[in-house]
Order: sequence, then C-alpha cells, then structure tokens
Amino acid sequence: MGAAVIIGAGDATGGAIARAFAAQGLSACVNRRARNADALETLAQSIRDAGHQARAFPADARIEEEMIALFDTVEAEVGPVEVAVFNIGANVNFPIRDMTTRVYSKVWEMACLSGFLMGREAARRMVPRGSGTILFTGATASLRGGKGFAAFSGAKAALRMLAQSMARELGPEGVHVAHVVIDGAIDTDFIRQRHPDFDAAKAKDLILSPEAIAANYVMLHNQPRSAWTHELDLRPWGETW
Amino acid sequence: MGAAVIIGAGDATGGAIARAFAAQGLSACVNRRARNADALETLAQSIRDAGHQARAFPADARIEEEMIALFDTVEAEVGPVEVAVFNIGANVNFPIRDMTTRVYSKVWEMACLSGFLMGREAARRMVPRGSGTILFTGATASLRGGKGFAAFSGAKAALRMLAQSMARELGPEGVHVAHVVIDGAIDTDFIRQRHPDFDAAKAKDLILSPEAIAANYVMLHNQPRSAWTHELDLRPWGETW
Amino acid sequence: MGAAVIIGAGDATGGAIARAFAAQGLSACVNRRARNADALETLAQSIRDAGHQARAFPADARIEEEMIALFDTVEAEVGPVEVAVFNIGANVNFPIRDMTTRVYSKVWEMACLSGFLMGREAARRMVPRGSGTILFTGATASLRGGKGFAAFSGAKAALRMLAQSMARELGPEGVHVAHVVIDGAIDTDFIRQRHPDFDAAKAKDLILSPEAIAANYVMLHNQPRSAWTHELDLRPWGETW
Amino acid sequence: MGAAVIIGAGDATGGAIARAFAAQGLSACVNRRARNADALETLAQSIRDAGHQARAFPADARIEEEMIALFDTVEAEVGPVEVAVFNIGANVNFPIRDMTTRVYSKVWEMACLSGFLMGREAARRMVPRGSGTILFTGATASLRGGKGFAAFSGAKAALRMLAQSMARELGPEGVHVAHVVIDGAIDTDFIRQRHPDFDAAKAKDLILSPEAIAANYVMLHNQPRSAWTHELDLRPWGETW
Repeated sequence: MGAAVIIGAGDATGGAIARAFAAQGLSACVNRRARNADALETLAQSIRDAGHQARAFPADARIEEEMIALFDTVEAEVGPVEVAVFNIGANVNFPIRDMTTRVYSKVWEMACLSGFLMGREAARRMVPRGSGTILFTGATASLRGGKGFAAFSGAKAALRMLAQSMARELGPEGVHVAHVVIDGAIDTDFIRQRHPDFDAAKAKDLILSPEAIAANYVMLHNQPRSAWTHELDLRPWGETW
Repeated sequence: MGAAVIIGAGDATGGAIARAFAAQGLSACVNRRARNADALETLAQSIRDAGHQARAFPADARIEEEMIALFDTVEAEVGPVEVAVFNIGANVNFPIRDMTTRVYSKVWEMACLSGFLMGREAARRMVPRGSGTILFTGATASLRGGKGFAAFSGAKAALRMLAQSMARELGPEGVHVAHVVIDGAIDTDFIRQRHPDFDAAKAKDLILSPEAIAANYVMLHNQPRSAWTHELDLRPWGETW
Repeated sequence: MGAAVIIGAGDATGGAIARAFAAQGLSACVNRRARNADALETLAQSIRDAGHQARAFPADARIEEEMIALFDTVEAEVGPVEVAVFNIGANVNFPIRDMTTRVYSKVWEMACLSGFLMGREAARRMVPRGSGTILFTGATASLRGGKGFAAFSGAKAALRMLAQSMARELGPEGVHVAHVVIDGAIDTDFIRQRHPDFDAAKAKDLILSPEAIAANYVMLHNQPRSAWTHELDLRPWGETW
Repeated sequence: MGAAVIIGAGDATGGAIARAFAAQGLSACVNRRARNADALETLAQSIRDAGHQARAFPADARIEEEMIALFDTVEAEVGPVEVAVFNIGANVNFPIRDMTTRVYSKVWEMACLSGFLMGREAARRMVPRGSGTILFTGATASLRGGKGFAAFSGAKAALRMLAQSMARELGPEGVHVAHVVIDGAIDTDFIRQRHPDFDAAKAKDLILSPEAIAANYVMLHNQPRSAWTHELDLRPWGETW
C-alpha cells in the first residue's frame, strides 16, 4: 500500500489533507511534534475509524535525523511514499527593530528548513522509482513581503524557491512538485476564536474550507503527467486581494 | 439546461474543452469564425453523437454585435450560460522593426479584445444570477515578453490583466474568473506537423493532452466557492521552464 | 545635435522629462495632439527660454503615418534621435459590465498602440547606429489588474511586454530599452485639484516630483552599457504599496 | 562624518561600492570575515590612499554579537551610519538529493541571516534619525528557482522579502530600503579565471563593471525622497535573459 506523508498535520488543513489522501486509498502517515503526540494519534485513529489507513509519526521536522528516520520507517513498515505534503507554517509579525534573531531563525527552520528536509527525503525515495508527488503549502506571503513579515515571508519565499527548483529538476524525473498559495482565513480553531464574525462568514463560504483545500491537493496528485500544474492559488470567493 | 460557451473552439484544446463540459451535462455552445462553420458543425455533431448536447455558433469574436447576439441566442434558445471559455490565440513572432501595425493590432483584437467582449457579455448575464465561471486560456507569453513576441505577449498579458481585474470585481458577486497558463506544445495538427519527433514525445506524455487540459477547466468550474483558484499553470512533466 | 523625442509631453512629467534631456544637451522634440498645439509650443518655448533646444511636434501618436513623419522630420531637421520616451497614459476605471468597447479600445490605442509605434520607429533609426535609449512610462497597473482597471492595466501590461520584448531583442543591438513603474500621485494640475490635502502632502515630499522622475529617465540614458537597468519603480517615501 | 557600512566587501563589487561611497564623502566602513582581515585592510588603505576615509571592520556577519558590535563601534568612533550595504553571496548548485543540511543552512546564514542582522542593526540606528539608506544585493536567483539552486535562490528570495518588508515598514520612517538584482557575470577574479573568453567579453562591455554597479548604489542613496526606487536590475547590454 502506498503512503502519503503529511508533515505538519497539526491543524485543520493538514488533517483534512490526510483524510483526503487516505480516502484515495493511501495510508496517511501523519506527522507533528512529539509534544502533540496525543492529538496526532487522535487524528490517525479518526481516519482509521472512517475505514481508512493511517499512522502517527511524531517527530521534529527540523531535525534531519528524525525526518530521515520517519521516511525510512514509513517505507519499511507502511509502503512506498507516493505523496509527501509539507504543511508547516509559522506566521509571526514583528517590527523589524523588534525581531529577535531567535524568532527570525526559528521561523525559517520551521517553515523552510523542514520543507527542505521533507522534500529531499521524498526526492531520494521517489526519483529512483520515477514517480511521486511532493506538495508544499504556501501563502500570500510567499509572493510579497508585507510590513512586519520579514521572517514569515522570507521563509515562505524560500520554500517557494525550493519548490520551483525541485520542480525544474524533478519533473523530468517523473516526480510532480507543486506549490499551493493559500490566501485567506481557513476554518481552524485559531481563526474561529479570532475572526470578528466567524459564523456568518463561514455560512457564506467566506472562510476557506480545509476539505476544499485538501481536494486540490488530491487533484494535483492525480493530474496526468502530460499536464502538470506547478502552482495554484486558493482563496474564498469574496476575498479581495 | 445550462450552457457552456467556448469562444475559439477551433483547435484541439477548444474542442476538448467543449466535449468535457458537455460530458458534465452542459450544452456546449461552440464558436469559431464563419469561414470555418463546417468544421465547427462537425465538432458539434461529434459531441451530439457521443450523446451530449452541443450547438455551433459561428461568429467573429472581435465584433461586438456578433458576440452580443451569440450570448443572446444562447440564453434564449439553449439556456443560461454557466461557463464561458476564451480560447483564441494568435501566436506570431516578428523582429520589432518588421512588425506591421496591422499585425500588431490584429493580434490584440483576436487574443485580447475578443476576450474582453466575451468576458463582459458573460459577466452581464452571470452577475445578476450570482453565479457562473469565466475561464481564459493564457500562455507563457502572458507572463514574459520574449524576443520577437511584442504583439503576442502584449495581447496575452492584457488578457491576463482582464482576468485579474474581473476576478477581483466579480468574485464577490459569485462569479468565478480564472486564467490558465499553458506552457508547452499541445497535441494539435499544427504541432504534429512541426514537432521534430512528435510520436516519440507523445508516447512519453511530453505533449500536452487536450483532454488533460480540459479536465482542469472542468475542475475550476467545479471548485467549491470557499476555495477558488484564480490562476494555474499546465505543462508536460518533462518541460524545462 | 542629438534629439530626445518625448511622446506625450502633455503633463508635468512629460514636460519635466523634456526639460531634463534638453539640459543634457539634446534637442527636446516634444509631442502631444494637435488640439493642444498651443500648450505644446509654450513648453518648447519655455525650454528655449532656459537656453536649451526644443521644438514642438504636434501629432496623434496613435496614427502610424503621423509617427513616421514625426521621426522623419526630427531626423532630417533636428538630428539623430538618441532618446525616445513614451509617456502617454489613459487611466480609466469602469465596472466590467459598463466598459464600452470604444473605451476599452481607445485606452489600448492611446496607452499601448502609440507606444508600439514610437518604439518601432525609434528602433528602426537606432539599431543601424547601434545606440540609443527607449524609455516607457509604466504604472502599478502595469503589474496588477485591480478592480475596474481591465482596460488600463491591460494596456499598461501590454506596453510592459512591448518594453521587455524590445529590450531582449535590442539590447544586443546596443539599444537600451527600459520601463519605469511610477507608483503614487504625481505633482500635476489634475492631482492638485483632486488630492484631499495636496499642499501638506507636497510639503512633505509625499507627492512624486516630476523633476525627480525626470532625473531617473536621464540616469537610465546615461548608464554605461556594462550595467543597464531594464525596470525600476519610483514612489514617494511615505507610499504604502 | 557619516559612515557607509559595506557588509561583504570581499569581492570586486563590494570594494567598488566602498570606494564609490567614500568618494561621496562618507567614511567607508568595510567588512568581511576575520580570516581575510589582511585583504580587508588593503582595501581600506587603498581608499585612504585615494584621499578618502575608510576603516576595516573584520567580523562574521552571521554572528549577532559581532554585527551589533560593528555598528556600535562605527557609530561611536566613525559617525552615524548613513548607508548600509549588504553584499554577501553564496552561490552553490547541487542536485536536491545531494544537498546537505549543512550546505543548505550555511547558504541561508551567509546570504540571508547576515542580511537580516545588518538590516535590523541599521534600522535601529537610522529610524530614530528619520533618515538613511539600506541596500541589498540580489541576483536573478532572487526571483526564480532554477534547477539545483534550491539553497541559493531560497536565501536570495528570503533576502528580497526582507528588503520588501523593510521598505514597506521603514519608507514612512524616512529610511530608504532598496534591492538591486544583478544579472550577469561581474568582473571579479573568480569570473576572470572561469569565463571562456573574458578579455574579449570585457572589451565589449559584456561583463558587469563593479564601478558601474557601484554608481547605481550611490544613485539610489542620492534619490530625493519624493521618488524612491525599491528595486532595479542591472545586466550587461548583450545579456539575454
């Protein structure tokens, strides 16, 4: 059975992506940090309860050894990784003079270095097989450095360049690398608590549905190789951008 | 029954898009110029032979009156336009000093003014209903002005700005406007005759399949409105870009 | 004596550019439409009053014959065209459903077709000499299709692709083609009348100074050919973008 | 006397920028790593020999404490930092599967984290004074993730987002932040040894002259604040891009 590795399955989006690939017949290998191992296991169990395959792989995606071990274990005990999804964000906003080196570096480690590690480990396993899909979650900040977003947009832009560079190298190897630019509020606990009028906005589909997002990740994986998409954006219909 | 209007159904891509929307249960209202009315009718007939609905609407897409009449007739005799697709290209390459005003203007009329007319007529009918999908076919030249491509990339970039501007205005009205950047050789008669090694490339999926392209147009139409895509690219897996 | 042709010398920016090149020792050949011939002559006279060379060339920049005649006359009676500047805008904003074909086409003719004609005629004369500078004035709309700006951003994006395409073709011929993206309110009569607090903004340098803009056009012309700029943006220090 | 800090004054470009600002009457405070302290002192001496002010500040730009100390010393012993230039590159190319975590991280530290530290320290000193210029050196890779360039283009894109973010925040504070995209071979020892036909190319101005590059950095510093440029590109006239 093929595996879909989801790095950063800690929010509604990552969870929905895991469910969506599991529903496609892949075993969802979900990851987040060890301190959230219980929530991760709950997610995996809920996928299994729905009749699909899933397994929790708690690990720190910033640590090379942990990511290598994760991919090794998945390949050895679950099956070949057919899909790898990177879904870790680290959205912070600070005036440049108040940005600490620690925050600036940490955002890059979480939102970019982890993506490199996942991308490289996936590539190492997929290229010899001549197939596979590697998907990166982007944001508006991937394209534009807004006020206060030096760290976040820097990490996201670097992740986008990783995706571009990998796509140009790995496409001709049969590996599909794509980048999804998500623009707008997503239906997560975080947004539910902070959005001024969440319920009304949600009722009008003005909040990005994690399931709708996930459907696009599955679509990308299923594109025939004569017409691959490298980048697409997703935003609610009412979003002005 | 809802209608899908395809302006520029004169090549393999337009034909495949028409077939794909017809297979979704829409009546394919296909258009190209009157001088190609026979080929257009053949396309419509082939869709009907497959058990779907289709009708030929020969008209010059650059002529305002003809486009208004086309949309009026479709709405009166077929049904509400749910999808409008603009698929007219006009790829030429001339050194700037050799570019005639006639060619420069004509490329814009075909590849951009026609798109404006289709977009506006579709919007006029879709906005009052609060729904509909308007799709524009782009190219690499939409994003980049290569040597000799002043006319073509100018028209394509203007068409892209039309799509962007319409998306920002009409999204909040419930109308989905998207732009598809196609990058690479498509399986058409033109390419079959000119590609140095067409059959080998086609066998390896290195030529964009019109059916695969069309599937993405249908996908865009079917996206739930909480997560709409405005722009995506399509290219064969082996394309270096 | 070399000539600097300024097409669209009808506003403060065009006038400042003409003065700036005249101060560099070129003869400023200023153009706007015949109906504004008096104002054009006043501009030329003011440059001559300052001790520099200038001459008015009223013509409709959208008309091929008039542009060819303008360049022919300049070369025959003034001197070789060393600089050609395109500075015609046509900023309009309409909801897409209210945009007439006449407006959509006219904006393109003024802001893009005229630019093509100037660019081509300049190229025809500069390439054989292996030198010259061709400058196009852009705007934020050159890069982004805002709501209501389908016509304006379409024309500006097409003009930008013209500039890109010409730069790629003509750079190796020794002709420098550049595009200047101006972002923000410029000190013109139009803005003076409409800006809510013009004098205060002007006093704080929050309004683009035509002289400051013009200095950049001259700078581009004077760049040594080992380090040419194709595109730069200009905006006031306080502009958020 | 005002100071111009040049971080990464280890190549021809950084040296030329230092000379150019010194010629403007600023004291050139040049930096590179301690292991190159001799070469750095030679550069400073050569500027002083030309009758200008200069001082060597060997330090590791990736180390927060060293950068803070550098700026503190400059402000205490030389004068207020009026210009800060970041000019460290780290161009490497590896297939993604061969890219080590060490290389990927190191490229980011050199080409991006160092830029953040310089930018922040400059901002901390310039914002209270309401003036100053912060310049970042970019590359084609800042905009595009080519095959094998995941690390380099990631770091350069992140640096560009830093520049954008800082420009949007600090422009209204009176601090000019700009980003220069250099595209093409520069006249350095590295290129001289590797370019297939350096002398012929140099003779035809097909190699970027460090002095011509530096002139643009000075131009950016001298732009009046009503018309600031945030980004410009520089390439030789014959470069196809």
